[in-house]
Amino acid sequence: MQETLRRTFEERDAARGPDGTFRWLVEEVGELARALRDRDPDALAHEFSDVLAWLGSLANLVGVDLEAAVARYAEGCPRCGSSPCACEPR
Amino acid sequence: MQETLRRTFEERDAARGPDGTFRWLVEEVGELARALRDRDPDALAHEFSDVLAWLGSLANLVGVDLEAAVARYAEGCPRCGSSPCACEPR
Repeated sequence: MQETLRRTFEERDAARGPDGTFRWLVEEVGELARALRDRDPDALAHEFSDVLAWLGSLANLVGVDLEAAVARYAEGCPRCGSSPCACEPR
Repeated sequence: MQETLRRTFEERDAARGPDGTFRWLVEEVGELARALRDRDPDALAHEFSDVLAWLGSLANLVGVDLEAAVARYAEGCPRCGSSPCACEPR
């Protein structure tokens, strides 16, 4: 996914920079909040994908591999090490 | 990734519900903002993975498959259809 995003948006992501790209991410998180309120399945899928795409663009800009980063969740909860998680509920 | 998250956090995600889970997502987006400011590579990878995990938990709760959702970016920009994107820069 990040490779496709890089091929598609690298130039404008670089021109915009991390701060402007973070602002876009937050804007899409706001649209996700609205879709959660409306509970429209198509809008939800749309906004989740936009959040994920901006997260991927931002990760590209600062050199983070999302797949490698999220590996800390691969064996269960990174805090307690269990799956299902056995931390105190929050 | 969503399957692992479901196995690990399903029970507490369901108990917390979408609104509480969204609040967690936003909290982690705030921590990502801080990591962007500090430019610490380990903290960045950590916060990106937390944002992604909470996004996955939230998607699980409302029945969205992130991989299917993000397929609209697979062929390039979903707005202009090109890769690289040929939309007006923003």
